[in-house]
Amino acid sequence: MNKGNMKAQQSQEAILNALLYLMEIDEYPFITISQIASHANVSRVTFYRNFESKEAVLKLKIQKIIHDYISIHGRLEHLNFNNISELLFNIIIENIVFFKLLVENKLLYLFTEPFYESILAENQIHRAYLWEQYDQRVFKNVLSLTFGGYEQFIIHHIFDENPSVEQWKADFNEALQIINQINSQTPQ
Amino acid sequence: MNKGNMKAQQSQEAILNALLYLMEIDEYPFITISQIASHANVSRVTFYRNFESKEAVLKLKIQKIIHDYISIHGRLEHLNFNNISELLFNIIIENIVFFKLLVENKLLYLFTEPFYESILAENQIHRAYLWEQYDQRVFKNVLSLTFGGYEQFIIHHIFDENPSVEQWKADFNEALQIINQINSQTPQ
Repeated sequence: MNKGNMKAQQSQEAILNALLYLMEIDEYPFITISQIASHANVSRVTFYRNFESKEAVLKLKIQKIIHDYISIHGRLEHLNFNNISELLFNIIIENIVFFKLLVENKLLYLFTEPFYESILAENQIHRAYLWEQYDQRVFKNVLSLTFGGYEQFIIHHIFDENPSVEQWKADFNEALQIINQINSQTPQ
Repeated sequence: MNKGNMKAQQSQEAILNALLYLMEIDEYPFITISQIASHANVSRVTFYRNFESKEAVLKLKIQKIIHDYISIHGRLEHLNFNNISELLFNIIIENIVFFKLLVENKLLYLFTEPFYESILAENQIHRAYLWEQYDQRVFKNVLSLTFGGYEQFIIHHIFDENPSVEQWKADFNEALQIINQINSQTPQ
């Protein structure tokens, strides 16, 4: 890494930390770029050299989280709910302070949208058998329902008192079993 | 209804319509109360006599939609996905212009959150058998997963060309069947 890149990375990290710090004490819409720059000890010019907006700062962190997820997801042999829950809940709980801030500020979609697109792309590349089995419309619907289920589960559990991957997995799984039962009673 | 109430209702409707009109041409965060009042042909004082914020205007419409949903939901004999999809997709498609504006502006949570609370309350009152069968934590998890599934499905289908309740029901059902299959392959 050259000196310029290292400097940019340092500024980006300082800016991200400043924004996350400010989000702990103020509501997201009211945080200004000047405040962030000041807390990060950088100029407004430096802010805008690195990011086009507040949202772009959060997206940098989100991209890293998605990248970590996908790199493991891509090596999963079986795409079942047990493996997905294990992986997803681990990543959420590892970054729980960040995800709490997203949920509190109704910004979880900043994660969900690119995450959905990344999973779609990853599956298109690595899991050809899924695309042979189902047409794309059906596959997207399965992904939407699954994503939504996880999203609302996370929204309702992120403020749990000692959240644990094991507890979340057990809860998610139990709910899924009941949904299966309801579904099997639904006239087709 | 007395004259004062009728006047208030007229103002509220004019304000709601003005906000929805403005949301068609501008992004929600940039719409001001003065703009809304001016388009509704009311004063800012009248606006604030009726609503405390822009969000409160949207919530009035949302409350009506939820009320309509719950009044039918409460009479459903069987809570299965077929009946829920029929009812929910009908109400979304009847109000599709409104829901498109919510989705475009990342405001669907303004509907989802009170809707979830209303369903929870309605079931607590009318469906004692559910609460005997499952403890409250489990029931909330089932509701979260279901809500999330419907929410993401709607986000991904609201801009379909010629959306139809029948098509949405078929798509949702098909995806649910596949999720059941994946789930039955998941080690418990």
